[in-house]
Formats: sequence, C-alpha cells, structure tokens
Amino acid sequence: MSKKIQIYNTLTRQKEVFKSIVKNHVGMYVCGPTVYGDPHLGHARPGITFDVVFRYLKHSNYTVRYVRNITDAGHLENDSDEGEDKIAKKARLEQLEPMEIVQFYTISYHKAMASLNCLPPSIEPRATGHIIEQIKMVEKILENGFAYTINGSVYLDVNKYNEKYPYGSLSGRNIEDALEGTRALDRQSEKKSSVDFAIWKKANPEHIMRWPSPWGNGFPGWHMECSAMSEKYLGKKFDIHGGGMDLVFPHHEAEIAQGNACNDCNPVNYWMHNNMITVDGKKMGKSLGNFINLEEFFNGSHDKLEKAYTPMTIRFFILQAHYRSTVDFSNEALQAAEKGFTKLMNAMETLGNILASDISTYDVNTLQENCYAAMNDDFNTPILIAHLFDGVRIINSIKDGKESLNASDLEQLKKIFNTFFTEILGFISNKGSSGNDLTNEVMELVLQLRGNAKKSKDFDTADLIRNELDKVGVQIKDGREGSSWELK
Amino acid sequence: MSKKIQIYNTLTRQKEVFKSIVKNHVGMYVCGPTVYGDPHLGHARPGITFDVVFRYLKHSNYTVRYVRNITDAGHLENDSDEGEDKIAKKARLEQLEPMEIVQFYTISYHKAMASLNCLPPSIEPRATGHIIEQIKMVEKILENGFAYTINGSVYLDVNKYNEKYPYGSLSGRNIEDALEGTRALDRQSEKKSSVDFAIWKKANPEHIMRWPSPWGNGFPGWHMECSAMSEKYLGKKFDIHGGGMDLVFPHHEAEIAQGNACNDCNPVNYWMHNNMITVDGKKMGKSLGNFINLEEFFNGSHDKLEKAYTPMTIRFFILQAHYRSTVDFSNEALQAAEKGFTKLMNAMETLGNILASDISTYDVNTLQENCYAAMNDDFNTPILIAHLFDGVRIINSIKDGKESLNASDLEQLKKIFNTFFTEILGFISNKGSSGNDLTNEVMELVLQLRGNAKKSKDFDTADLIRNELDKVGVQIKDGREGSSWELK
Repeated sequence: MSKKIQIYNTLTRQKEVFKSIVKNHVGMYVCGPTVYGDPHLGHARPGITFDVVFRYLKHSNYTVRYVRNITDAGHLENDSDEGEDKIAKKARLEQLEPMEIVQFYTISYHKAMASLNCLPPSIEPRATGHIIEQIKMVEKILENGFAYTINGSVYLDVNKYNEKYPYGSLSGRNIEDALEGTRALDRQSEKKSSVDFAIWKKANPEHIMRWPSPWGNGFPGWHMECSAMSEKYLGKKFDIHGGGMDLVFPHHEAEIAQGNACNDCNPVNYWMHNNMITVDGKKMGKSLGNFINLEEFFNGSHDKLEKAYTPMTIRFFILQAHYRSTVDFSNEALQAAEKGFTKLMNAMETLGNILASDISTYDVNTLQENCYAAMNDDFNTPILIAHLFDGVRIINSIKDGKESLNASDLEQLKKIFNTFFTEILGFISNKGSSGNDLTNEVMELVLQLRGNAKKSKDFDTADLIRNELDKVGVQIKDGREGSSWELK
Repeated sequence: MSKKIQIYNTLTRQKEVFKSIVKNHVGMYVCGPTVYGDPHLGHARPGITFDVVFRYLKHSNYTVRYVRNITDAGHLENDSDEGEDKIAKKARLEQLEPMEIVQFYTISYHKAMASLNCLPPSIEPRATGHIIEQIKMVEKILENGFAYTINGSVYLDVNKYNEKYPYGSLSGRNIEDALEGTRALDRQSEKKSSVDFAIWKKANPEHIMRWPSPWGNGFPGWHMECSAMSEKYLGKKFDIHGGGMDLVFPHHEAEIAQGNACNDCNPVNYWMHNNMITVDGKKMGKSLGNFINLEEFFNGSHDKLEKAYTPMTIRFFILQAHYRSTVDFSNEALQAAEKGFTKLMNAMETLGNILASDISTYDVNTLQENCYAAMNDDFNTPILIAHLFDGVRIINSIKDGKESLNASDLEQLKKIFNTFFTEILGFISNKGSSGNDLTNEVMELVLQLRGNAKKSKDFDTADLIRNELDKVGVQIKDGREGSSWELK
C-alpha cells in the first residue's frame, strides 16, 4: 500500500506528496472563527475537515502541532480595510464590552466543536493576545521597505512588493485583476494604491479596541494576526495552512505577502482550502432566511428543518463529500446521511458480536489497503466511507451466515473499523452522545424482561415493550446472537 | 425581610452593607487558575464560592461583569520573584511549547468548572493577552516615582510607597513583619529591599516566554496581570475582588500597592477571600499522597477514595460550609454530604408531585425570609441549606398527609426551592448530569412493567427488576402517588 500522503496544494494547483519540514513533525495552522455570532455550517466544515487531517496525520505517526486562532479583534466588516470591527459592532449593539462578546461566542464555538467531536487544537491563540508580535512584524516590514505609514496607519505597498515577489500566486489574481476588483471603493482612500492593505490601522475616536504602537493608538490589520501567531508557534516557514476557500483572497494572499515582506520567506509549504456550503442550493445568508446555526440543526428549531439532526449526522454529511467539493444542505440529503450513518454505526455494533469461523471468505487486507489509499489521496473521505460500506455488507453477510472470517481476519476487520470509522473519521455513537452507561444498563434489563415475556408467551408485555420503546425512538433488533437495540 | 447584602470585607475585617459604585451594576474580579496542572479542590472552592456570589448578585437584579483571569505566564515557582515560570517549567519537562500546556490545562479547568455547574465568567482574560497594558502600568508607576529599574527588571519600591500609602493594610502585615519574613532569601538579590517586588522581570537567556519592553526583553511580574486586567475591564476602582485566602499576601497586597502607585486609587471596595481546604486533616500536597484532583473525585480512582463522588456532591459539600471556614475532605464527610444532597434532590422531585389542599398548616413566607436573610448575611450557604432542610421536612410531611399547603403557598414553596436550590446554589440533578431524557423515558417503561408484574402477582419479575436496578445504582421508591426512581 502507498504510505505517502498526497495533498492538493492550492498554491501549485496540483496534488503533491507531503513531506514535512522536520522529520515526523507537522506544523499546521488553520484559520479559526471571528467570535461575534453563533457557530454555523461555515464553522463546522473547516472544523471537521481539518480535524480529520489532524487525526490522520497523528495516525500516520506525526507529532502534530495544530494551531487554530480565535479572532477577537481587527476583523472589519469588509475586506477593503473599511467598516466597523465586527466584534466591537456587536458589542455596541448589545451594550456589552467587546470581550464579553468574545467570551460568549468563544464558549458557543467550543461547545459546537465538541458536539461535532472535533479534537481541540494544540494551541488556540487570540489576536488580542499577540498585539506586540504583530507590531514587531509591522516594524520589520516597514524596515524592509515594503510598507508605508500614513495618518497613523501602516499599509503594505503591494506594487513595491510585486517588484520582488509575485503577488497573487495563491489566488491566481494578478495585480491588475486586483486593481480592477477594488477600484470602485477607492475614492476617499488614503492608500497609495487600492490593492494595498492595512497591516496596522489608526483607531478612530469611536473605536474602542485599541493599543498603543509606534504609529499611535490603533489596532492590527486583520491579516496580520495569522502571520504573527503562525510564526510565533510554528516558525517562519511551516508545513500546512488551512482554511475555507473564501479566505484565499485577500486573507491568505496577504499572509504570503506579509511572510515574504517580513522574513523574505514564503511562509507555507502546503495550502489547503475546504470548499463552500450552500443551503437548499443557495448561499447561506440571514436575508435569505436560510441561515441555520448549528444549535438549530441539533435541536431542529429552525423553520427550514423538518427535524433535528444529531452532530454525528452533520459530521457524516460533511465527510461524505470531499473537502474540495461544494456541499448543499437539504432535509432530504441530511435524512439520507442519517440513514447511512446509522447503517455504519449498527454494523460497528454487529461487528462486536459476530463470531469467528475457521475460514475466511473475504479479503480483509484489500479493504485495509483501500482505506489507506483513500485517505492518502488528499484525504478522500467519501471514498473511504464507500469502502467502509463494503465492510458493512460483509459484516451483515457474516451475521446472516453467508460469509465468514477466521479469528485473525475478524480481529483485523475490527481494527479497520476502529481505526478509520472512530479514530480517523471521528465518529462516535449517537447513543454515546445522547445516551450513556446507565441507559445501556437499563436497556439490558428491558431486553431481558422482553425475552422472559416471550418465553412465557406473555405477548402483551412483549408488545408493550416494543411499542413503548418505539415511541421514544428505540428499535429492537432480534438476531441469531440475541436481541440488541439501537436508536432509529 | 432585609434586602441589603452584607459582605465580610477582608480589608476592614468586618461585615459591611454592600453598595455598588454604579447603581444596579457590579464589577467583580476573581483570581483564576495558573494553568499548569490538573484542576483540584483548590480550584473548585473559589470557583464554586464566587459562582454563588455571581448568581446571588444577578438574582438581586444587579448586572454583574464577572472577570476571572487565566494566568498563562509570569507566575514563578515562589513568591519572592525567584524560580522558574510554572508553565514554562512544565513545558520544559513535557517537551512542549508553553502554550500547548496552557491549552491543555485551560480545557481541563473549563471542563471541571462546567461539571461543577459553575457559570462561565463574563470575561476570561489571559496574562499573555495583556502584556501591553501591563507595560503601560509599569511605566506609569515608574513615572509616579514608586518603582525603580535595575538590570532590566522593574521593582515596586515598597518603602517609598509606604511613605504615602499604608503598605500591608489587607494582610495586616506591616513592613517590618514583611521584612522579617523575607530576610533569609535576600542574600543575592538585586532589590533595594527584600520587601520590594518585581512588576517587570528581565528574561534570563533560558526563559522562553518573553516580550520586548522599554527595559529589554522580559515578562510581567505575576501580580501585575490582575491589576492591568481588572483596570481594563472594570475600571481603576471596582466593587468586589475575590480569591483564595492564600492570595491575600503577597498577591492581593501587591495589587492594592500597584493600584495606588499607578492611579493614586485603592482599586477595590470589597475584598472577599474563601478559606482553605484540607484532606483528612492535612494540607493537600503531592508529597503527602493526599493530592486528589477533581477528575479523581468524579471517577473514584484515587487510592484515598472509597468511591466516586459526583460533581454535585463536591459542590454540596463545599457549600455546606461557609466560604470563610476551612473545609476538611474525608470519605466519611463526603458520604454524609452525598446523603444530604440526595435528600434535598428527592424532596425537589416530591415537591413536583404533591397536591394542594384548601388550607396551609405551614408558614411559607417565613421560610422565604429566612433563606434571603441567610444569603444576605455574607452569603451564608450552610444556614441557607439548613433552612431548605426545614422545607424538606414539610414536603415529606405533606406527602405523608401530616401537613398541607393551599395552592398559592404550594406555588411559593416551589418557587423558593427553584430560586435557592437551583438558581442560586446552582444544584442540578445527578440524573441530569449522568443520565438524560432517554434514561428517564426507558425508566418510565421499567416502572410500568414492574407495576404490571405486581398487579398480576408476578413477583419474580418485580423482584428481578428491583434487583437488577439495584445493581446499577438505581433505587425504586413506592409512594402514594405511584413509584419513582432515583440514583442511590
């Protein structure tokens, strides 16, 4: 089997064999949330995508330092360095101190990520926690001649930069394209060129989040935090930088420029971007009425939702598509994902109960190779899931006596499911998330009572049990090896 | 009933009527954890103590801004400005970046606080996130003439300070006492006097957590973070500062000195300190083998523990003592607390099922007044709990037909329990924390099956149910209004 991981690099527009800078170590930086609103699908997708990358790299014996930031200042309402700070605006509207907003939505974000079974990153730095590092970087870019100061703000001089380094290499926009796109906004700007971007902004009198700097009171440009924090925790050059595709321009393009302008070093070897999400075929937006936050998915409270969907259904649905494909959320698609997930989860349980035979009628090695090949091919989770469904077919055939595995093959099949389904794809039982040990223990008793009732031909009681459990969403399955239960 | 809250103020050594600086608003700062180890009882006690203060002030219609910090740098191993940074040392031992240590133990701390049902504070600032603010404060103290610079470090000049402000007012130590206590450590010190303390420390070459400053690369003195962050989020003078009694000297004494030296303003109106914890009569310490972390209490895995204790048992045990009394943890005392908590919790459930009569034989108003009086008397939770046990007696007497309440009194009794037991003391059902809706629904079915079995004189089945539930820690209670269940 191929042990080499291939990653599609947005920078080179091709899959490349992954080679880490330091042997057996990976430095990975992923853009985290700007914490001024409820976590939604736009947070779930990169959260889950890079959680699987993190898990697979760890499984591949790398020591991974996974850094994901919290943007708690500096992210303005639009990308052309104009408008209010998103967090400060929310604070003004809710009459709270900005850091109260940050605290509230950071907690919501962490809660949502935990529900989706995303592992916490190794380090979770905050923009406001690294103002000094950002100021130092701005000073160095100024020293290197790639920025200019005007009215207390500092801008990266993109034309000057472009003389030495190719601007736009990540997004494929050249400087003329960029000029074209921004000209309309440019009338009253103090910038030399509309392609220039702020690396430090002067604080207007009404701007409440501000810090002293060599250029007066102000705040860092939004792109600067990721450059400063990735350098601090991963070094001037590191392995993987991830984020949503909407961040390619201007955010990540600016990070490359800042890295080159500060350290004469392209900061990242592999750029990875997850594709976007639509809801019922449309871009998600508050004005369209299709903006559904994660909590609403989990409890089914949004008008557009026919029912609640568990965090694992959302996770499964997202991983059923490759991270570079778009994903469209609809009730129909989610209900299909729910069925698929349940099928896999039930097979996991069946696998725990089936017995070994003397001979194997199925080639477990090939299944394992296929699973690794899928993950090594740019983390192709939909293909991996398809292979696991092959495994499900075999598991159910063994249960029905149509196929068999010997003891060591059965062990290997269990290991494959534990490794890929649980450890790498990060799925956990909905029972586990909504239920617990006590439920399992009490259900054991209920199944025993039902067995006794059937033995003594007390069908009223047996029916009562089945019907009452049915009402609360529990289904009983009778098999060769006894009865079991599962959530419908 | 008295509506005025009295608070014991460590500064004045007496109870004072609480009056907030801004009408209907309270600013409260509580010292949070230095995140370099597993959360333990020393975290649980201030967490729970000030959670109840926060809850009661909110219940009393104050808008409370509750700030609790995370110390992620600057806290050295001993209080005399010597030794390694606690987090950096842990990072060196575990071969991790300090911020990986911070992330790991911050998550553990949050998880433990959530288990104990402590509400998150309004803002949770970090020392490393406020280096600029700390440097500004050091600069101002220098300008004001209360500090001196030596070899790249800045020290608060306590003798100079003492000429204008009384040093030691909080701890009751005068400057001679302080000199006495520290003389032994003083041989190689660069300080002018051994009572002086660092407000900025030069970073030795091996010190990895460092920031540029006007005095060279270094890091803030530990006491400085709380001064800078409380000023930033609560103002130069705010209402309440809380923490463990071990922080009175030198930490809080230093905060008062820093506030005066910087702003000519005593920063805090009411200083509140929770008393210390012992385990089996001894101070908790790793060398004594009685250092039990919270996770070990929750799962019973420590040798000294006879069993696991739920987070609510720990919470109840801590609140059964007044926060200014010492608390000694032992298996015997915890098991008594467990019984007491279960008794209250069961009464809460009974209260939901009892029916109103035409007449009341019990004065519910007096109970309510007593509960408020207890909380208003310096948050006297043990007295409050004693009053709630009076309520339990009445609830059980009503169930047994010996007392009665009319409809409006019954409503009021329910309100008292909801307010004081749930909202203010913050107790939740152990069922709720270890169980869930599905367990409740399945248990309903089990109780129904048992009822049917008894009706049809199938005592084997009825006994089987009782015995099997007993094994998994569920106890069935038969009452006038039907059967119910509870965790033992």
